Amino acid sequence: MHTLHGDIPTPVFAPVGTQATVKTLTPDELLDLDAPLILANTYHLYLRPGADVIARLGGLHAFMGWSGPILTDSGGFQVFSLESLRKVSDDGVVFRSHIDGSEHFFSPEKAVAIQEQLGADIIMALDECPDPLDYAYNKAALQRTHSWAERCLQAHNRADQALFGILQGGIFPDLRRESARFLTSLGFPGYALGGLSVGEPKDKTWEMVDATVPLLPVDRPRYLMGVGSPEDLFEGVERGIDIFDSVLPTRLARNGAVFTSRGRINLRKAEFAEDAAPIEEGCRCYTCRHFSRAYLRHLFKAGEILGLRLNTIHNLHFLLDLMRRIRSAIVNGEFAALKEAFLAQYAPIVDAKGQRTKELARRRGKAQSRHH
Amino acid sequence: MHTLHGDIPTPVFAPVGTQATVKTLTPDELLDLDAPLILANTYHLYLRPGADVIARLGGLHAFMGWSGPILTDSGGFQVFSLESLRKVSDDGVVFRSHIDGSEHFFSPEKAVAIQEQLGADIIMALDECPDPLDYAYNKAALQRTHSWAERCLQAHNRADQALFGILQGGIFPDLRRESARFLTSLGFPGYALGGLSVGEPKDKTWEMVDATVPLLPVDRPRYLMGVGSPEDLFEGVERGIDIFDSVLPTRLARNGAVFTSRGRINLRKAEFAEDAAPIEEGCRCYTCRHFSRAYLRHLFKAGEILGLRLNTIHNLHFLLDLMRRIRSAIVNGEFAALKEAFLAQYAPIVDAKGQRTKELARRRGKAQSRHH
Repeated sequence: MHTLHGDIPTPVFAPVGTQATVKTLTPDELLDLDAPLILANTYHLYLRPGADVIARLGGLHAFMGWSGPILTDSGGFQVFSLESLRKVSDDGVVFRSHIDGSEHFFSPEKAVAIQEQLGADIIMALDECPDPLDYAYNKAALQRTHSWAERCLQAHNRADQALFGILQGGIFPDLRRESARFLTSLGFPGYALGGLSVGEPKDKTWEMVDATVPLLPVDRPRYLMGVGSPEDLFEGVERGIDIFDSVLPTRLARNGAVFTSRGRINLRKAEFAEDAAPIEEGCRCYTCRHFSRAYLRHLFKAGEILGLRLNTIHNLHFLLDLMRRIRSAIVNGEFAALKEAFLAQYAPIVDAKGQRTKELARRRGKAQSRHH
Repeated sequence: MHTLHGDIPTPVFAPVGTQATVKTLTPDELLDLDAPLILANTYHLYLRPGADVIARLGGLHAFMGWSGPILTDSGGFQVFSLESLRKVSDDGVVFRSHIDGSEHFFSPEKAVAIQEQLGADIIMALDECPDPLDYAYNKAALQRTHSWAERCLQAHNRADQALFGILQGGIFPDLRRESARFLTSLGFPGYALGGLSVGEPKDKTWEMVDATVPLLPVDRPRYLMGVGSPEDLFEGVERGIDIFDSVLPTRLARNGAVFTSRGRINLRKAEFAEDAAPIEEGCRCYTCRHFSRAYLRHLFKAGEILGLRLNTIHNLHFLLDLMRRIRSAIVNGEFAALKEAFLAQYAPIVDAKGQRTKELARRRGKAQSRHH
């Protein structure tokens, strides 16, 4: 993909910088990590510091000192995560700020206008994000999401931004296909699969991807929102996904959990107290080149911020490097071999489903301050 | 000063890395800041992760990935800050860990042995740190501090470490002079002024410096512990101090307060919400070259760790750069002019005394987890 702020090789994983910062890192560190694209959250930035403030300060790139490509979501996901705090109509959605309880209104036109003020390279249409398991709600919401997508297209003025449509339809193949057919008829420069990776069973996630990707144009990027575990990147790429984003690597890092080629380990564990090895032998990230597991564990136990930074650098390097290897393997016709070799070593955590269920429960709770 | 880990130009300000990390920063960032010396805390590292653990992992330099000079304090200051938790005798001091309440014992010999395990370039004798305003206690404690200093010298084996003596004596010139005479008779490679900058009136601090510096050998570094405001660096250097350390720049940074040539400003203030200027025009630190006050304020208000990092970088750059300018001015015979020009612009905060009193009150409280 080509943007005014640089080319984005695909498939690509985008680190999440919810509040105009990929948590704990500087833009220079993201450059060192060779991150091709980062994501920021419209909902959060609209509330604080305000999209108008960011616009007056030169837009999001200047504000956060990142000159590479940025994608902003529409705010829909966050607003619809504020379960008890929103009123939705065909016009748009009224919600209360998780910061101060103040009341706000997002319409499709306003979501686009805010994203034009922020000035990201890729922006997203406003969508309604229902509970993925509720057929009736998904069917009704889909009409609204489609109508909003049309209004977003009409409202969008900036030629330097690509406005993507977002497919909805829960875990229901018929609704998903309907969404793909309708949105592609509008002719977006890219298509996202929304409303997934929010707690539904993982086989359903891939069933929805399989149901829709064949209906999407081959020359437009497909974006699977909120997906970012190593094993899921392989599954998604294999099915034709071009863009991924997730808070997983950065959030895990701040909990002491780091990726290795054999699976995740948690540095809090006592077994690492005197472990002089890096997180992963041979890893080229700054953390692994300079620090032992014992030191990282010490930083975590002592509550030191540096530990959060170093774990974040490693986890993002792990995913970004994995995507570089995947892109190279695709070019060389070796994707299947890479996937097999990687997954033969890598043990996904067994409680993945439990965590997702917890995530769904949390979504149904109050504010969703840091999700994708 | 010359150490196995590099030369230390004097006068020097040492950033504090209590738990084997200068809070929020990597060793690479300290290198970029050109920090000639950093400090780490024996008390904290002895308790967590343990000096033996650090020794087995190759010592403090290897453990924290810092190849430059390090100074460790003796742990005395911290232990005597645990007011309600210690029992002192001529043998040493029994105290309870602020982490888990477990009981521990420091003798002069043990404080040296622990510091030999940590392996810093400069280590400190164990001293007793009384309330600086209590004459009787200071007089009695001074004998113990002096006896402990002798025992530390006898216990010290590593020729690659310089063991400094610590003068005590509260705010009493006669005790301070006695301490200077006794400790210099033992022939340490360097002398620290302890028990100051702990809440006593500032004119008393300088009175004690004036009372003792003339009694210290001119060819041995003098270290004023716990001092680190810009205005105090000038006062100390003028009186012949060579080494300073303080958590002030890093702690202030984490509270949103940053140094400028006109004085401190707090980035939390609403007036900076749309301020596109850097903290200080012309400042060459990473933060000022890339980010606006508005962005830094946003990070602080949003609770983002990056803000703590960027403020820390600026504050340390400010002090380290000030010391570079001071050293250069001394060489060029322009120290007095630099001091006058700096202080003509720089407004020290008016509540400095109030803050020191608060600090003293806190010292008299429970654990003193992050003080110098």
